[in-house]
Amino acid sequence: MDLKELRINEDRLRETLETSAGIGATKNNGLERCAATDEDKQMRDIYVSWLKECGCEVVIDEMGNIFGIRPGKNRELGAVLTGSHLDTQKPGGRFDGILGVLGALEVLRTIHDNNIQLERDLIITDWTNEEGGWFAPACMGSGVWAGNITKEFAYARKDRDGKTVFGEELERIGYKGDFPCDHKQWNLYGAYELHIEQGPVLYREGIQIGAPKGILCLHWYDVYLTGAANQVGPTPMEGRSDALLAFSEMNLVVNKVTHQMGAMVGTVGEIQNHPNSRNIIPDGVHFTVDIRSWDDDHAVKAWEMMKKEFEVIAERRGCPIRAEETWKVEHAPFDKVLWDRVVNVSEELGYTCKRMISGAGHDMSEVNKITRGAMIFVPSINGRSHVECEETPYEDCAKGANVLLHCVLRTANE
Amino acid sequence: MDLKELRINEDRLRETLETSAGIGATKNNGLERCAATDEDKQMRDIYVSWLKECGCEVVIDEMGNIFGIRPGKNRELGAVLTGSHLDTQKPGGRFDGILGVLGALEVLRTIHDNNIQLERDLIITDWTNEEGGWFAPACMGSGVWAGNITKEFAYARKDRDGKTVFGEELERIGYKGDFPCDHKQWNLYGAYELHIEQGPVLYREGIQIGAPKGILCLHWYDVYLTGAANQVGPTPMEGRSDALLAFSEMNLVVNKVTHQMGAMVGTVGEIQNHPNSRNIIPDGVHFTVDIRSWDDDHAVKAWEMMKKEFEVIAERRGCPIRAEETWKVEHAPFDKVLWDRVVNVSEELGYTCKRMISGAGHDMSEVNKITRGAMIFVPSINGRSHVECEETPYEDCAKGANVLLHCVLRTANE
Repeated sequence: MDLKELRINEDRLRETLETSAGIGATKNNGLERCAATDEDKQMRDIYVSWLKECGCEVVIDEMGNIFGIRPGKNRELGAVLTGSHLDTQKPGGRFDGILGVLGALEVLRTIHDNNIQLERDLIITDWTNEEGGWFAPACMGSGVWAGNITKEFAYARKDRDGKTVFGEELERIGYKGDFPCDHKQWNLYGAYELHIEQGPVLYREGIQIGAPKGILCLHWYDVYLTGAANQVGPTPMEGRSDALLAFSEMNLVVNKVTHQMGAMVGTVGEIQNHPNSRNIIPDGVHFTVDIRSWDDDHAVKAWEMMKKEFEVIAERRGCPIRAEETWKVEHAPFDKVLWDRVVNVSEELGYTCKRMISGAGHDMSEVNKITRGAMIFVPSINGRSHVECEETPYEDCAKGANVLLHCVLRTANE
Repeated sequence: MDLKELRINEDRLRETLETSAGIGATKNNGLERCAATDEDKQMRDIYVSWLKECGCEVVIDEMGNIFGIRPGKNRELGAVLTGSHLDTQKPGGRFDGILGVLGALEVLRTIHDNNIQLERDLIITDWTNEEGGWFAPACMGSGVWAGNITKEFAYARKDRDGKTVFGEELERIGYKGDFPCDHKQWNLYGAYELHIEQGPVLYREGIQIGAPKGILCLHWYDVYLTGAANQVGPTPMEGRSDALLAFSEMNLVVNKVTHQMGAMVGTVGEIQNHPNSRNIIPDGVHFTVDIRSWDDDHAVKAWEMMKKEFEVIAERRGCPIRAEETWKVEHAPFDKVLWDRVVNVSEELGYTCKRMISGAGHDMSEVNKITRGAMIFVPSINGRSHVECEETPYEDCAKGANVLLHCVLRTANE
């Protein structure tokens, strides 16, 4: 057959995505399937059975990363890897990560059904806990695999309520495998990740495929403020140390500096206020700062400007401050050859395509450190993501999977 | 005996307070004993046994308010009532409310031990759930008694986690009594409440007794903001609807207007942020505003100024706003005769005394609507209250109880 004419099965992809959408479904049409939960196990079990139906060898590593391997003609050659994650935010949508795994599965099924023998091994992956929605940090499975964090660190992470431990929960659901979680176990040639854009650009411009040149850096900071709790009524305004007021000023500083610097996004998404009682002056605030830019130095400079202003505010408001860097992922430029291939394949398939940047972090941030990587984006309706109403039309999902199919075919036959 | 020489037993008062401090003790030397919990039951059981040891008739009403009655010579005359509450914030301190009940008990014991026959009935009370720390609102027992809220409303209140219902929990601990919770069941002549100041004034000025002329008004508002949740990385700064940023501006407005208006305090103590995830733009914020002033109109005017600015911010930031009044207690001026009596008695006992205002609400806010009321304040170290480190020296507690004793003696013998 002429490989050029090959297309994935759109109906089957849709059915597969719908099956996934039923495992951990929320009443608002979203998904809540955090890593190492019962829903995660249920999804993994089905996914592994699907891999086996395609005759794959299935490897589960110590972090629960699932690898489905379709051997190539020449097993000495580096493999082509593609995949994403099946876990979600708490709650999240039905496409983020999931499309990348089940789109890769659809590519595998298409190749398998057509008895296509590739030159290189094809490996499709489900990375454990990309979201970090229940056990932080994010990109845990790919992060350990790439050597960015240790297995021991990951195992010891507690859930958001501080009650269960990740390693124990992974074992409980039966996905703490024996295979070493280490990229050195794998001989790779290149990697792709199909994903929803999670931003509004493709949707607004009516473009079908996005080809990101790489992923913005991601710098996470945690700030802790200490005030003095007192009953609000009898405590005069003068002399108060109100940690929530100090926070409020600081949040506006994050926004101001982000706008001033430009070429970045800066956000406070999370706050804990103590004791959080309407008639007690807040004595403790913890908040997060998320800074992303294509330029790591630019992001660091922005943080330093913010921190300097924070310290002035903290001093003036009598609220001692502690600020720490929690996580830092440098910006990840993708491989130029694979990036161009995404564009070329899209055009050959007759899809409109835009070169862009990924604002969100992905498992590819980690994989790209180990092998040549690239990503394929499809539109997010209204740019909504990490919410239950996250949505991408199935025909757009199919287009993305077709681009993935031909990128994989081309790369795996080199 | 010469009644003028009578003094309460400081050691016994201390022991009683220490017994209380052991029921629901926190590891930081505070107390967590919210209304209708097991700790509340334990404290109530002991307290009732103490009342009975003094030969009191004990009445428990439908809201669990406990009345210990020492009959006077002439039962046709109106009674003198004194008390406060045994419940705490979550967590709170060892004195707020508790001193007012156990101080009243100490007065009762002193009168009982000396076989003093008063002209009028003396009633000492433990009001249920003054704090509203677990079941909102505050002043629930005295509020129903005074006819400010209905019994049905109170019974139906859910705990802060939304899991249990107040009426059922009150029944579970055995304190849903049969006696009607209605001030009309009682013939009252006047009332006192001994309490810690909860502010820094007496402590800073080294004064032993505070005599408030009344209680500031208390206006509570709840504000709800709606933003648009999106993954922070791929969502440009332009066009975001970040509810936490809108909140931050509004909190600063509350502070600014409060300072501009003067003669009031205004505080945001509580905030809920949704989804409260570090990489998702906040799409929902709920926060509270607490405004207190001696002048109700002044407080309303301040709120209207705040709300007007809130609406401008909400519009500009694309975050629709809903604001509602949750609770309003008008300022409560005390009875001039009883207020003067607190000052006179203090001076006769040789204590320094200051006329002042109560910034905090108390059960007396409710009781004062029904009968003539006054309060007696003792210093709070560093003005700290509603916190575990809340502290008042035992000798100051004793001074307050002695003032209460002589106010009670004088009023009950009129």
